Amino acid sequence: MQKFKVSFSPDNKSIQVEKDKTILSAAISAGIYVNSTCGGDGVCGRCKVKVKSGEVNSQASGIITAEERKNNIHLACLTTIHSDLEVEIPANSRLNFDKLTPDELEERLGGLYSKAEDIQLIKTNSQDGVFKHSPFATKLYLELPKPTLNDSVSDLERVVRSLRTLGKFPVMQTGIFNIRQLGELLRDSDWKITVTLGLRNDTVEIVLVESGNTTSKNFGLSFDIGTTTISGQLVDLNSKKIIGTKATYNQQAAFGSDVITRIIYAGQADGLEKLHLAVTDTMNQIIRDLSLEHNIDLNDVNCIVCSGNTTMIHLLLSVDPAPIRKTPYVPTANFLPVMRAAEAGININPRGLLSCVPGVSSYVGGDTTAGILSSGIYKLEQPSILIDIGTNGEIVLGNRDFLVACAASAGPAFEGSGVTSGMRASSGAIQKVEINKKDFNVKFSTIADKLPRGICGSGYIGLLAAMLETGIIDKSGKIKATGSRIRQTDSGKEFVVCFKNETETGLEIVITEADIENLKRSKGAIYSATAILVKHLGLEFSSIAKIFIAGGFGTYLDIDKAIKIGLLPDLERSKFVFIGNSALAGARQILLSDEAMSMADSLASKITYFELSVDPDYMDEYSQALFFPHTDLKKFPNVKF
Amino acid sequence: MQKFKVSFSPDNKSIQVEKDKTILSAAISAGIYVNSTCGGDGVCGRCKVKVKSGEVNSQASGIITAEERKNNIHLACLTTIHSDLEVEIPANSRLNFDKLTPDELEERLGGLYSKAEDIQLIKTNSQDGVFKHSPFATKLYLELPKPTLNDSVSDLERVVRSLRTLGKFPVMQTGIFNIRQLGELLRDSDWKITVTLGLRNDTVEIVLVESGNTTSKNFGLSFDIGTTTISGQLVDLNSKKIIGTKATYNQQAAFGSDVITRIIYAGQADGLEKLHLAVTDTMNQIIRDLSLEHNIDLNDVNCIVCSGNTTMIHLLLSVDPAPIRKTPYVPTANFLPVMRAAEAGININPRGLLSCVPGVSSYVGGDTTAGILSSGIYKLEQPSILIDIGTNGEIVLGNRDFLVACAASAGPAFEGSGVTSGMRASSGAIQKVEINKKDFNVKFSTIADKLPRGICGSGYIGLLAAMLETGIIDKSGKIKATGSRIRQTDSGKEFVVCFKNETETGLEIVITEADIENLKRSKGAIYSATAILVKHLGLEFSSIAKIFIAGGFGTYLDIDKAIKIGLLPDLERSKFVFIGNSALAGARQILLSDEAMSMADSLASKITYFELSVDPDYMDEYSQALFFPHTDLKKFPNVKF
Repeated sequence: MQKFKVSFSPDNKSIQVEKDKTILSAAISAGIYVNSTCGGDGVCGRCKVKVKSGEVNSQASGIITAEERKNNIHLACLTTIHSDLEVEIPANSRLNFDKLTPDELEERLGGLYSKAEDIQLIKTNSQDGVFKHSPFATKLYLELPKPTLNDSVSDLERVVRSLRTLGKFPVMQTGIFNIRQLGELLRDSDWKITVTLGLRNDTVEIVLVESGNTTSKNFGLSFDIGTTTISGQLVDLNSKKIIGTKATYNQQAAFGSDVITRIIYAGQADGLEKLHLAVTDTMNQIIRDLSLEHNIDLNDVNCIVCSGNTTMIHLLLSVDPAPIRKTPYVPTANFLPVMRAAEAGININPRGLLSCVPGVSSYVGGDTTAGILSSGIYKLEQPSILIDIGTNGEIVLGNRDFLVACAASAGPAFEGSGVTSGMRASSGAIQKVEINKKDFNVKFSTIADKLPRGICGSGYIGLLAAMLETGIIDKSGKIKATGSRIRQTDSGKEFVVCFKNETETGLEIVITEADIENLKRSKGAIYSATAILVKHLGLEFSSIAKIFIAGGFGTYLDIDKAIKIGLLPDLERSKFVFIGNSALAGARQILLSDEAMSMADSLASKITYFELSVDPDYMDEYSQALFFPHTDLKKFPNVKF
Repeated sequence: MQKFKVSFSPDNKSIQVEKDKTILSAAISAGIYVNSTCGGDGVCGRCKVKVKSGEVNSQASGIITAEERKNNIHLACLTTIHSDLEVEIPANSRLNFDKLTPDELEERLGGLYSKAEDIQLIKTNSQDGVFKHSPFATKLYLELPKPTLNDSVSDLERVVRSLRTLGKFPVMQTGIFNIRQLGELLRDSDWKITVTLGLRNDTVEIVLVESGNTTSKNFGLSFDIGTTTISGQLVDLNSKKIIGTKATYNQQAAFGSDVITRIIYAGQADGLEKLHLAVTDTMNQIIRDLSLEHNIDLNDVNCIVCSGNTTMIHLLLSVDPAPIRKTPYVPTANFLPVMRAAEAGININPRGLLSCVPGVSSYVGGDTTAGILSSGIYKLEQPSILIDIGTNGEIVLGNRDFLVACAASAGPAFEGSGVTSGMRASSGAIQKVEINKKDFNVKFSTIADKLPRGICGSGYIGLLAAMLETGIIDKSGKIKATGSRIRQTDSGKEFVVCFKNETETGLEIVITEADIENLKRSKGAIYSATAILVKHLGLEFSSIAKIFIAGGFGTYLDIDKAIKIGLLPDLERSKFVFIGNSALAGARQILLSDEAMSMADSLASKITYFELSVDPDYMDEYSQALFFPHTDLKKFPNVKF
């Protein structure tokens, strides 16, 4: 196939592409964000570009005025490449990111902005294999019989007829976009094509028709959109292999650290739009980084499955979240229709599909459904617990017969946010800590054995346990000891974990009394919510068979130490299973199997939401949990310092 | 409900609308064409307007830049009205019609342009009642239970749950547009809403959600898109009543008089776009005229069903028709998915749906399917014939067991186009003619008894028969007689039907030898195609039970005279049934019943296409039919002059 060089300005990027590809597709391949909210249908008119030199074939469109045509302005989605090209992308045709004023950008990116980083995930007994491999988007290669006078069914019916020989598709849809391209495409490709089929709830859509056999290039994304942290994963839909996983902080954090402040911000002028752009920018950054690093063309990424709490999903889709925080706390939608990723501003193949994992209620979202799915708790005989430790912590109690979920506002401390030296569970994060009883010297290990850059959630758990064991802090979290590592500051005492010369950044790594207070409130919220839920269902901790611990802790979590600080209940260690980011794992299962997708729907319908705040004992339980490990030591018989 | 006045410039139109309606909806109500190809999703960005004064509430959208926002530029579809407003609609935000240069407009509208006119239709034994009343779009009024802490399902699920109590909808879809509006709409309307459901092939879509009870306002359109004439009908979907019917010439005629020249024109630069705009402009003109005359808000028109030949449907949808005229004559699609009318540039409710009646092949389109449906030929026991006389004439032979169709290129003469004094079958058209044998004086009657303006198809049939009876013309169509009404001109002889002082326009109404030649070729094409089809199936005319005659002849067609000129075969008069515009009637049945829609699908799959040109006898048969009535008088035993 003939290839041409397309150079984009003012980006100063160029790329080799095959003849007949569209300029939009070339721009996406080059990692340039071009506007396209209609998914390349040629109707939104947002992808106007100027062809400065070279030969193109531009499909007619009423969107381009005669004046624009004279000036070589074309719609990138309807214009194919027929020679080397120089293309200018005007500011208006770039993704919204570029439309922010410098002040807005600065406000948003300042401080919190950080590159997406590779994250390592624990190897769980992945449930991927449990479901049939039937991904969200499937590519099928077809060699169609050429039409003759005796076999003259139309182009579209010829494609559908051939597809129907390969599988059962009770309801099949396609849009006018594919039909408009079809005649020329079939004839130019000598009737050898690849059809991408996507699942749109109960129907199957012909998402895309491409020339030749492109079945080997079929990728998808799974995302966990957390209040504080967004994690994304690029998956080969053919081999089911994870190609890469990255995480970064949700840029929305600039507008508030929890869902309530975000909802309030959304009510301000342009607030909803800014929050929407913040989450999509964060996701697009992860997507672009994954694609560039692994040399995957974004045009070959055909679908994305997102799990997230209900507020995050509303903001992703620009749906006003206001009713979520007003009694009776009813969101606009828990079950969302499959749509084009472009409709939400997500930059994959412009016709690629987006599915959101269904949620349960305003405060138990699709991330919990995904966690239940990937933990497998819904298949167990004995009542078990899933604890997902995040800014909005979710606790699920149930088995194959029932599932009850509640939400605890834990804050972002265990995600390394809002604490002095906090960081995500990525390269250079301290994840294990020991402190010498005598001199308080610290021994630590970091993720990927790099010089330390900060402390992640599992590091904080180890650090708090060690500070308790060594008596550096008391049960209330106050620093009691003295020594070279302990300092008094204006805002209280702090403990130096690493000195400047030990760190990658040349900055000290410390934990302050305020940090400890923060972490204590987080662990208290999680523990007390779990305790209330168990009590609410008339059970005892002792009757719980399994406790699945989920959260962005990377590859490591020391259960013993988590019990020691009172984050987890004091039960037999064998009952605990650490499963890492279960929401991301669940989203991946849904990406890879329509059976998992159906199961998620049925789980979300089945889960009962329990509102903690209506339980008269909740505040008591919470207050009692604001000690290490707890006010009532009988509840932690095995914890000794 | 509070109402506000919205004034639009530069149109200098204003309208009273309810608070919270969008500016787009107000513009549509005022009969102003605003661009919107996404159907009001807020993604296409084509409906930007400037709010010059007044208070609006504009939903956030990344499409509006900070600069534009400062200048009070808003998306008409996402901006609701909160006070009296002055709104300016820039040229770029108008429907494509306005984007043509004055020359292009002149070229397109010159000569052929004429206002849509009311047309009267024959009262056939309408088959509407045969199918269950289940229109393409249905409105349902719901009083939703308000959410409580004990009944806190999401807004969307609350709507769907309520819908499911009213009917079975196996697959239900909705788009992000409705979801984005839903939260505020439900609360502002006190949970009393009207949901418009539309059929999207095998699924049901929530097309629209409105505040309060609007079920009484639910209208649809049926269209027959002919090569020469376009007819449209506004229908009350509740009462099934036809509110009005109008027809006008297809503005595409400026680019060629038959489908082949149109297909060739479509291959030129911007050709496809111009043809697409010509057909949609013609349709939008009919739609606007119908809505203004009958005081129907276009926002209450929720769906449209179009029948038309395969080329017309391709051009309506901007699909390249090139393969239709290249062997093996395979169109891009015969069965088209339901889409938004806005996607095709049709100006009804921006979210309204468009369905095209499925076609059979490149030269037997959805108009034939619709004709078979409304004639009922597919239910008869005995073989019968349907002859649809149009620019592309279609003949169907069959019964409940088989259906074979062929197409004859008849030209537009019987639609009053391409003939000197031709006009459509509308007010002032001569439809009956008698000529005095002695003095050749003409007695005529016109549609609606108005002063004559021209001659329509049934008038030409009567005129030709009378000229034959009186010996003014011979069997070859040459003018042989002499007299005050017969004149020699540079291009041959002509006969004066009405003198200047008899006509409404003050212009003579004449028929020339060239007109007669034209009409002779038309009737010859229709007759010979019918004869070949009967022979091809091994039948005789005598074994045909019924002959349904369809076409734009208005309310009247004299079968005797049509036989006399050799347009129809010489059979028992009782076998003929004149059914008028059967394609339009079929489209209306589909509009009013999903059973009719399914039947159209199954008919289109069942019909066999017969290619006339491959029959070795066709040219012979055609040549023999180029006489009045025929070379072989044995075939017309009852015709005597």
